[in-house]
Amino acid sequence: MPELRKDPIIGRWVIISTERGKRPSDFGVTEKRVGNKLCPFCPGNESATPPEILSFRTDNGKPDSPGWTLRVIPNKFPALRIEGDLNRRGHGIFDMMTGIGAHEVIIETPDHFIDFPDMDEKAAQDVIWAYRSRINDLKKDPRFRYIMIFKNFGEAAGASLEHAHSQLIATPIVPKRVLEELEGAKRYYQFKERCIFCDIVRQEISDGVRVVSQNDNFIAIEPFAPRLPFETWILPLEHYSTLEDIPEKAIPDLASLLKETLGRLAIALNNAPYNFILHTRPIMDNNNKEYHWHIEIMPKLTKVAGFEWGTGFYINPTAPEDAAKYLKEVQLKPSESKVIVDNVK
Amino acid sequence: MPELRKDPIIGRWVIISTERGKRPSDFGVTEKRVGNKLCPFCPGNESATPPEILSFRTDNGKPDSPGWTLRVIPNKFPALRIEGDLNRRGHGIFDMMTGIGAHEVIIETPDHFIDFPDMDEKAAQDVIWAYRSRINDLKKDPRFRYIMIFKNFGEAAGASLEHAHSQLIATPIVPKRVLEELEGAKRYYQFKERCIFCDIVRQEISDGVRVVSQNDNFIAIEPFAPRLPFETWILPLEHYSTLEDIPEKAIPDLASLLKETLGRLAIALNNAPYNFILHTRPIMDNNNKEYHWHIEIMPKLTKVAGFEWGTGFYINPTAPEDAAKYLKEVQLKPSESKVIVDNVK
Repeated sequence: MPELRKDPIIGRWVIISTERGKRPSDFGVTEKRVGNKLCPFCPGNESATPPEILSFRTDNGKPDSPGWTLRVIPNKFPALRIEGDLNRRGHGIFDMMTGIGAHEVIIETPDHFIDFPDMDEKAAQDVIWAYRSRINDLKKDPRFRYIMIFKNFGEAAGASLEHAHSQLIATPIVPKRVLEELEGAKRYYQFKERCIFCDIVRQEISDGVRVVSQNDNFIAIEPFAPRLPFETWILPLEHYSTLEDIPEKAIPDLASLLKETLGRLAIALNNAPYNFILHTRPIMDNNNKEYHWHIEIMPKLTKVAGFEWGTGFYINPTAPEDAAKYLKEVQLKPSESKVIVDNVK
Repeated sequence: MPELRKDPIIGRWVIISTERGKRPSDFGVTEKRVGNKLCPFCPGNESATPPEILSFRTDNGKPDSPGWTLRVIPNKFPALRIEGDLNRRGHGIFDMMTGIGAHEVIIETPDHFIDFPDMDEKAAQDVIWAYRSRINDLKKDPRFRYIMIFKNFGEAAGASLEHAHSQLIATPIVPKRVLEELEGAKRYYQFKERCIFCDIVRQEISDGVRVVSQNDNFIAIEPFAPRLPFETWILPLEHYSTLEDIPEKAIPDLASLLKETLGRLAIALNNAPYNFILHTRPIMDNNNKEYHWHIEIMPKLTKVAGFEWGTGFYINPTAPEDAAKYLKEVQLKPSESKVIVDNVK
C-alpha cells in the first residue's frame, strides 16, 4: 500500500510508493569520466579561468600558477554579476532587480580523476575550510542576503565539467525554499520552544531505521519524507544555524562523514549523478535558535521530476528505510572506491 | 546584465540570465518515436490495461474492445490506491496517511503516431471533455481534496509510454505548490479585491511582448518570471477558478489554443519533452473569486533543474520576451507539423 508522508519542516507531502520499489541496481546510471583534455580546472590551465580568489598551496607559488591543492575562481559564465547596484524596480504588477551577486567555483582538487569520496582526509577538510572562508568574506557585502553552496555531480545533475568542483552563489534575495524551511522551523519553535531539526535528529537516532552513519559530531540520515530515492541529509548533532558557526575541531568529522556518505552513494548507485546543497541561515537573520544548518544530497535517479517540481508533489519509489539499509550495507573499502574511478582513466 | 524577476503569485525569484541566452535550436532535443510494438494503449491491446472507466466511441462497441476514439483507464501501476480509508496517523514528530487516491490514464487517441497538436479539432475537444467528465465524477468522493491533470511528453519528461496520453491523480491532500499559489492569489485579492491572474492577463495583453497567441476565450503567454526556457501558460480570459466551470461553448477555443501552442513548441523546440499541468482550485474550496485556473506547460530543455528545485531558485537562460518572439514566428502549417511525426513512422 502506498503511503503519504509529510515533511515535518516544510509541510510537503510525498507518496512513498513502495510497490514500485526499486533496488539501487534498478536505476542503472553509471556515468563515466571523459578525461582531462583541455580541462580548465586542471593545473597548468589556470589561464583558462578568471583570476583566482583564493588558493591553498603547499609551495609558495604565485597565484594562477600550478602548485595549488584547492582553488576558488569566479564562475566564467556567472548567473549573477558582482559589480553594480541592486536597483529594485517594478513594472506594473511585476517586480524585478538587477542580477547582482557572486558566483564562484571551488576546484576541490588538482587531480582530474578523483572525487570527494576518494580525497584524503586533509584535502576533504580543506574543501570545508574553503567554503567557510568564502562565506565569511562574502557575508560582509551588505547587498547579499543568502549564500548558497552546492555541487552538481554528473551531467544529468547539471555539471558541465567533470573535474571535481562545487559552486557558491551569493544572492540579494533569500530563495523561496529557504524561506519555507525557516518559516516551518520558526512555527515549530514557537510551539515547542525546541529546534525541529534537533527533534528530528533525536527521533532518528531513537528509531534507528533511517540512519546511514554517525560520528561524534554529525549524522547522515534518509529523511522521513524524501522527495527522491536515496535523498540523504547530513546534520550536525549539536545545534548550529550556519556552517561557519561550528567549532573548528568539528570540521574533520564533517569532512569525514561527507566523504563516507558520498562514497556509500557512489558505490550503491554506480556513481549516479547528484546535487548536494548546503542549507544555512540567511545572512541578515541573527536568530541562531530556530534553524539548524545541514546538507541535502539529492541523487538523480528518476526522470519523473518534471511534473513533480511543478506541483511540489513527489512520488518516490524507494522507502527511506530501504535506502538506509542499502547504504549501510555498502562495503566501504577505500581501495575499492578508488578503483571505480581509476578504471576509466 | 542578468535580471532577477519575481513571480507575482508565489513570490519566487528567478534569474533571467540572458547572457547565457539560447536560441531554440541550441537545445537540440528531438525525441523520436520508437513505434507501436505491443503498445498497451493501441486498439486491439485493450486487455493489456485494467478495464476502462470511460470511452468515447463512434460505434456501439463493447467496453475494452477496439472502436474507441478516446479511452480512460486506471493506471496499471498506480501511485495511489482507490480502495481503503485515509487513516491519518502520527509517529513521533512525523505525520503520515494511507496512500488513497485515484490514478487514471487518458488515452487521447487510438493512433499511436499522432500527438495532441496533430489531432483534429473534434478529437482535441474530446480530451477536454474527458478531463471534465473524470473531474466531475471524482469530485463526488469525499476523501479527495485535489485533482491533478498532467501530461508527460517524451522520456526525459517522465513518459514511460509514447502513445499520446495524459494522467489524472486525485489526492487526499492539496499539494504544497497549489497551496502556495492559492495563498499568493488570496493575499493579492485581499489587498486589491481583484484576481491577480486577471490583472496579469490584462497587463500581458497591454505589454504584448510575452503573448504567444490569443483567441476569443483564451490566451497563451510566456510568464514574466519563468522557471524554465519556453515555459508557457494558457489562461482563460474570463475569470473561472476551475476547468469544469467554463461554459461548454468555450471548450473548442481551449482545445484549439492548446493544440496550437503545443504545436508551436513542438516545431520551435524539435519535439522537446515537456510536462503540462492543469492548475485548478481544490475540490473543497468553494471560493471562486481568488483563484484563476490555467495550464502550465514546462518544456524540459535544460539539465540544471536538480539544484534549482532543491532551492526553489531558478536560472533561466532564455528571456520570456525572446521565447514569445520565437514561438510567434513559428510557421504553423498543419501539414508540416504532421510530417514531423510521420517521418519516423
